[in-house]
Amino acid sequence: MKLINYKQVKREKVEDPNSKNAFIRWVISDKDNAPNFAMRVFEIEPKGFTPYHKHNWEHEVFILEGKGVLVHEGKEYPFSSGDVIFIPGGENHQFKNNSSETLSFICLIPIQNKCIL
Amino acid sequence: MKLINYKQVKREKVEDPNSKNAFIRWVISDKDNAPNFAMRVFEIEPKGFTPYHKHNWEHEVFILEGKGVLVHEGKEYPFSSGDVIFIPGGENHQFKNNSSETLSFICLIPIQNKCIL
Repeated sequence: MKLINYKQVKREKVEDPNSKNAFIRWVISDKDNAPNFAMRVFEIEPKGFTPYHKHNWEHEVFILEGKGVLVHEGKEYPFSSGDVIFIPGGENHQFKNNSSETLSFICLIPIQNKCIL
Repeated sequence: MKLINYKQVKREKVEDPNSKNAFIRWVISDKDNAPNFAMRVFEIEPKGFTPYHKHNWEHEVFILEGKGVLVHEGKEYPFSSGDVIFIPGGENHQFKNNSSETLSFICLIPIQNKCIL
C-alpha cells in the first residue's frame, strides 16, 4: 500500500518541445508495481499547454483545479474543476491553460506505455 | 471523446450490506468504450464507510475533498484532500469517513472487473 500527498512527488518539467509551462508528477506507476495503469498529476501554468498530438492509448482525466481548453480534433472545448474527460486512443488532443491561474488535473494511462504524455 | 462534469453522472448508492452512507458515480467505464480501466467518484457521507474487504485487483485513489481513514490490513491511516493511495490486489482495505463533512475521492479499477467496489 502507498499513501502520499501528491505534492510530495517530484514535479518534473514536461520536456516535449511542443509543450510549454507544463509539469508532471508520476504519483502511481510501474515503480510502485502498479500492474495496469499509471496515475499522473499535471500542472499547467498560465499560457502553458501540452503538445497537440495523438497516440494509440487512451487518457482518463479529472480536472482538479483551474480551467482550460481541450483541443480535440481541431475543435476547442472549455473545461473546469470537476470535469471528467475521456480521450480514446487515436484522437488528437491538447490541454491548454488560457487562464491566469494554475490548471491541475489527473491523467491516467495504461501502464504498458512508457511514454511521457 | 467524452467531457462531462462528474456531478452530471448518476449518483448510485453502494448496495453492499457492509457499507454505509456510501455513493458511487461511474464517470468513465466500459459503457464509454474505455478499454483498460474505469474511473469512479465515491462520496462517503459522515459516519459512512465502504466494506472492509479484499479482491485480486488494485485500486488507484485520489482524495478530492474531505478527510477520512484508510483501514489497511488491520491498521488505520488518516488521509485528506490531495492524498494519493495505491492498494495492490489481495490487500484488505476500507475507506471510512469519521468527519462531519462529505468525503469524496476518485477510485480506478481495471475494467475487466465488473465489480461494484
